[in-house]
Amino acid sequence: MRYAYLGPEGTFTEAAVTALAGSRSDLDVQLVSCPSIGATLAAVRTGAVDRAVVPIESSVEGIVTATVDDLAGAGTSDVLIQAETRLPIEFALLAREDTALADVKTVGGHPQAEAQCRRWLATSLPGREWVPFPSNAEAARRVGEGDLDAALASASAAARYGLTVLAPDVHDRSNAMTRFVEVAPPGSLPAPTGADRTSLAAFLAHDHAGALMEILTEFAVRGVNLSTIQSRPTGDGLGSYFFFIDCEGHIDDARVGEAMMGVRRVCAEVRFLGSYPRSDGGRTQVRPGTSDPEFAEAAAWLARLRYERP
Amino acid sequence: MRYAYLGPEGTFTEAAVTALAGSRSDLDVQLVSCPSIGATLAAVRTGAVDRAVVPIESSVEGIVTATVDDLAGAGTSDVLIQAETRLPIEFALLAREDTALADVKTVGGHPQAEAQCRRWLATSLPGREWVPFPSNAEAARRVGEGDLDAALASASAAARYGLTVLAPDVHDRSNAMTRFVEVAPPGSLPAPTGADRTSLAAFLAHDHAGALMEILTEFAVRGVNLSTIQSRPTGDGLGSYFFFIDCEGHIDDARVGEAMMGVRRVCAEVRFLGSYPRSDGGRTQVRPGTSDPEFAEAAAWLARLRYERP
Amino acid sequence: MRYAYLGPEGTFTEAAVTALAGSRSDLDVQLVSCPSIGATLAAVRTGAVDRAVVPIESSVEGIVTATVDDLAGAGTSDVLIQAETRLPIEFALLAREDTALADVKTVGGHPQAEAQCRRWLATSLPGREWVPFPSNAEAARRVGEGDLDAALASASAAARYGLTVLAPDVHDRSNAMTRFVEVAPPGSLPAPTGADRTSLAAFLAHDHAGALMEILTEFAVRGVNLSTIQSRPTGDGLGSYFFFIDCEGHIDDARVGEAMMGVRRVCAEVRFLGSYPRSDGGRTQVRPGTSDPEFAEAAAWLARLRYERP
Amino acid sequence: MRYAYLGPEGTFTEAAVTALAGSRSDLDVQLVSCPSIGATLAAVRTGAVDRAVVPIESSVEGIVTATVDDLAGAGTSDVLIQAETRLPIEFALLAREDTALADVKTVGGHPQAEAQCRRWLATSLPGREWVPFPSNAEAARRVGEGDLDAALASASAAARYGLTVLAPDVHDRSNAMTRFVEVAPPGSLPAPTGADRTSLAAFLAHDHAGALMEILTEFAVRGVNLSTIQSRPTGDGLGSYFFFIDCEGHIDDARVGEAMMGVRRVCAEVRFLGSYPRSDGGRTQVRPGTSDPEFAEAAAWLARLRYERP
Repeated sequence: MRYAYLGPEGTFTEAAVTALAGSRSDLDVQLVSCPSIGATLAAVRTGAVDRAVVPIESSVEGIVTATVDDLAGAGTSDVLIQAETRLPIEFALLAREDTALADVKTVGGHPQAEAQCRRWLATSLPGREWVPFPSNAEAARRVGEGDLDAALASASAAARYGLTVLAPDVHDRSNAMTRFVEVAPPGSLPAPTGADRTSLAAFLAHDHAGALMEILTEFAVRGVNLSTIQSRPTGDGLGSYFFFIDCEGHIDDARVGEAMMGVRRVCAEVRFLGSYPRSDGGRTQVRPGTSDPEFAEAAAWLARLRYERP
Repeated sequence: MRYAYLGPEGTFTEAAVTALAGSRSDLDVQLVSCPSIGATLAAVRTGAVDRAVVPIESSVEGIVTATVDDLAGAGTSDVLIQAETRLPIEFALLAREDTALADVKTVGGHPQAEAQCRRWLATSLPGREWVPFPSNAEAARRVGEGDLDAALASASAAARYGLTVLAPDVHDRSNAMTRFVEVAPPGSLPAPTGADRTSLAAFLAHDHAGALMEILTEFAVRGVNLSTIQSRPTGDGLGSYFFFIDCEGHIDDARVGEAMMGVRRVCAEVRFLGSYPRSDGGRTQVRPGTSDPEFAEAAAWLARLRYERP
Repeated sequence: MRYAYLGPEGTFTEAAVTALAGSRSDLDVQLVSCPSIGATLAAVRTGAVDRAVVPIESSVEGIVTATVDDLAGAGTSDVLIQAETRLPIEFALLAREDTALADVKTVGGHPQAEAQCRRWLATSLPGREWVPFPSNAEAARRVGEGDLDAALASASAAARYGLTVLAPDVHDRSNAMTRFVEVAPPGSLPAPTGADRTSLAAFLAHDHAGALMEILTEFAVRGVNLSTIQSRPTGDGLGSYFFFIDCEGHIDDARVGEAMMGVRRVCAEVRFLGSYPRSDGGRTQVRPGTSDPEFAEAAAWLARLRYERP
Repeated sequence: MRYAYLGPEGTFTEAAVTALAGSRSDLDVQLVSCPSIGATLAAVRTGAVDRAVVPIESSVEGIVTATVDDLAGAGTSDVLIQAETRLPIEFALLAREDTALADVKTVGGHPQAEAQCRRWLATSLPGREWVPFPSNAEAARRVGEGDLDAALASASAAARYGLTVLAPDVHDRSNAMTRFVEVAPPGSLPAPTGADRTSLAAFLAHDHAGALMEILTEFAVRGVNLSTIQSRPTGDGLGSYFFFIDCEGHIDDARVGEAMMGVRRVCAEVRFLGSYPRSDGGRTQVRPGTSDPEFAEAAAWLARLRYERP
């Protein structure tokens, strides 16, 4: 079982792979590091790997647009989310062993690392040059090679690059979390568990006022709660959007299926991105009148009225 | 083919039977006069007749509550509306041949006749005693027998009771209409025509604020327009209601069926009262995204997502 | 203080006057019996009396259309509801002292009496002739005069007409209630009590699908619950309606006032029929965000943003 | 008049300043380059400059989160948007004069530049190292200094850094636009023009399902269209959001003011970010019933009902 992930070694995404694959101790898991989210997802699309693990939402920065845009992209809906996990995001300042804080002139990391440690940097390392890298691990590697004085990264990455933790817990918010998803080629979906999430991308037929309201109503009338709804530009001009939607429930739930059909009818296109168990411990709240048995009973009633007249 | 109607002979309902049955010249139509709306509908329920014709809505008095309550009544939903027609309602003042307006001391008719001629009565016969009768035709019969001086009724009823038209067109509004429905035991429904009406009675599960909004939303989200919605007391205390609903479309239309299932799930009980061609000349306006082919396409899409994974 | 009421003496409305005026023992109350709802309301409009008491809603028959149509009528919104009360409606069969049930050939009363005792009549007096009268008291009076064998009326009316109770409690439902309102020329409104009701008539600008939804939304978005909403024909053709609305709260409540302005803007005309204390013991449930202080705070905030820029 | 902008010289933001200030030829405009969006906005907050110009929305990447988060940030709502402009975003590949495409081993620019030219890079410069910089102009400067082989930037920036255009129009989409806003300390707002935009940040009181629907309904019921609504994490945990909202109209419009008060009452906090003329040529569509005169008329009607009783 080969897992592609946003590498290099030592990223938070690698930790997410461990969390997601760890429960399958029977598997022989091989990790394949990729340089970007696009490359990670391409690896599973081309069949180079069996699974891809990418971040999809951060409590600090919101949805990860590279992931969402790639999953929703036209012609690319040939993979589905299979599972999710969430990890706390904690940063340390890593440096070579002989470095003191006063010696640090340049600091690097992924732009999100800078965003999540901004206050600490302004207080403890004011005026230092910030150098952005595609990943924190890459910044750590460069510190190891002597190109950079310090890197923001996971404390656990220090050993891997021969570095030491110059300052732990340098993130501004103590409860930052990132949600990661495991993506696979379409096949059998995870079975409904009663605590599922379904992800969709809904493209508007035309940019009319009220489209968002229409989409929300399609879910609301069937009692399907949304945990995330985000508009994203389609790239076709200011104001042209699609909606990335996470709703509670599974495509096999009657209320979710009917809502999806409703959204499909009012949108130009809807892409199904997967139904999978939630990792936040919540269970789906089912409003009276929207359970599977109630849907089945109403369907049987309608069939009797339509077809079983004496 | 035996038709029960709200009699006696000469009522507007008798004219409605002629309009409804007239298009079936191949039938041997027999008319059975009944003394009340309840008796008319009971005749078709017991099998004494094949059809019942009753008024259901008036442009002056609104829905005819005796009809709606009887059709919606518990344990009685064993008949279905098959057809409708609408007739202009025009009143004349009928009297015996030797009567002058100044001689009229007592005027009678159905209470609705009084309501529809109130202004004319106040102007032309001020202060005269009004005597209510179960039907205008009954009042006319009593005039013929000498118990009453004049009756409000259809001019066409004069001859039948040996009376003359003392004053024509005494109704206050010139465009008053009444809608009549033909009721039959359940059997094959009239086929969809693209210009249909569906009637329902929806009983609330509990008397919560917002129930009406919920019901309206179930129809609105599927693009089903309502032509009538009226709350009626269930008789179980002030504030306990059911809703009598006329919507555009046929139970065999996908959007109407799905809306009915939705209403069924949020209500304690829904009684289907029939799907039948509209008599007002209007066609159903189908909002984009709610046609039968669009429902079918969305259902096929969902089925592919659910079951046809490679 | 002169009170007009729907008479004659012995009607349920007379009992309602006693309930409404009884709490004002300091007043010298004079009762003026009127032959119809229209005449009762006309008496207060012309200044012949100070107050009118009329039934407005029955748990068996729904809103009393003669009252609602008269109050909502064009050019007549010169009176306002000041108070309400509700009374249990219980019927007895009244007859002359020497009458046995077997002797009864004709029974009379108001058409609502027949509606509320229909099952008892069918069981205990099957096949007897029913004679409608403008009021139950009038039927009782005719029994006293020998024109009729028995009348459905309040047991308390027996003595007044020299009759006896041949059968008590002949109503089909044991908890039937009727709500009565006290109407006065406009003047100072009853002050808000926290348990008020506001009555309105809303006339649609045009007969468009969705008008009801629009009106409901204007109330719902401000957290104003509706206790009654009934469409009534305006008389201008089938399908032309106004809505009679009872909402919780007082016109002086900020949320009710804003909702009324919203309804005013989407309707051709709105007629205010009064704000007055509820008689059902309920208090207005105020949703968070819709109290008077919250409205005042938001208005102050907006004013600062608009006008108090440094 | 001192304008801070996201520099250095040669950025698209500098072009936006010219567009925004250009119409005020009477002003002596001084440009102050700032290294980040945060620094640009801080300059106007501290009074170091009179105005700040920052990008707020891109047709490729959506809202510019650094700008939106900063404007919406707690304790920082002491500046207001005064104006907007939109510019086409076109990229060229800049290099030193003697460079051929084959010589390019490293390419740099702002991460958004990489996002907007991704396809061209993959086709024309496959496998080259991408080096992110805080701005495209900074990357161009580094090319000039010999640290980097090529930069993605505006063709107009070439001269400034002594570079040449190695390849023009390397952006993947031909109609990419970015919207920029001019921010100032609060003072007199731009007057309403009938083609205005109002920006808000709405913080949820609690993270309840349906909050988005509530907010949308507050706008919809008053006929206020939204041109943008985006949820942003507050940073207080996954799923804790505020909404950044652009609506059509001006805070001085009655319908916008009432909608803002409504949103204020259902949210924990609402921050007003400005009302200013739209740059997209559209005018506000005013739904019947929501114009200023209609609001004024309804308010006068309510006042008469409440206070002017005879």
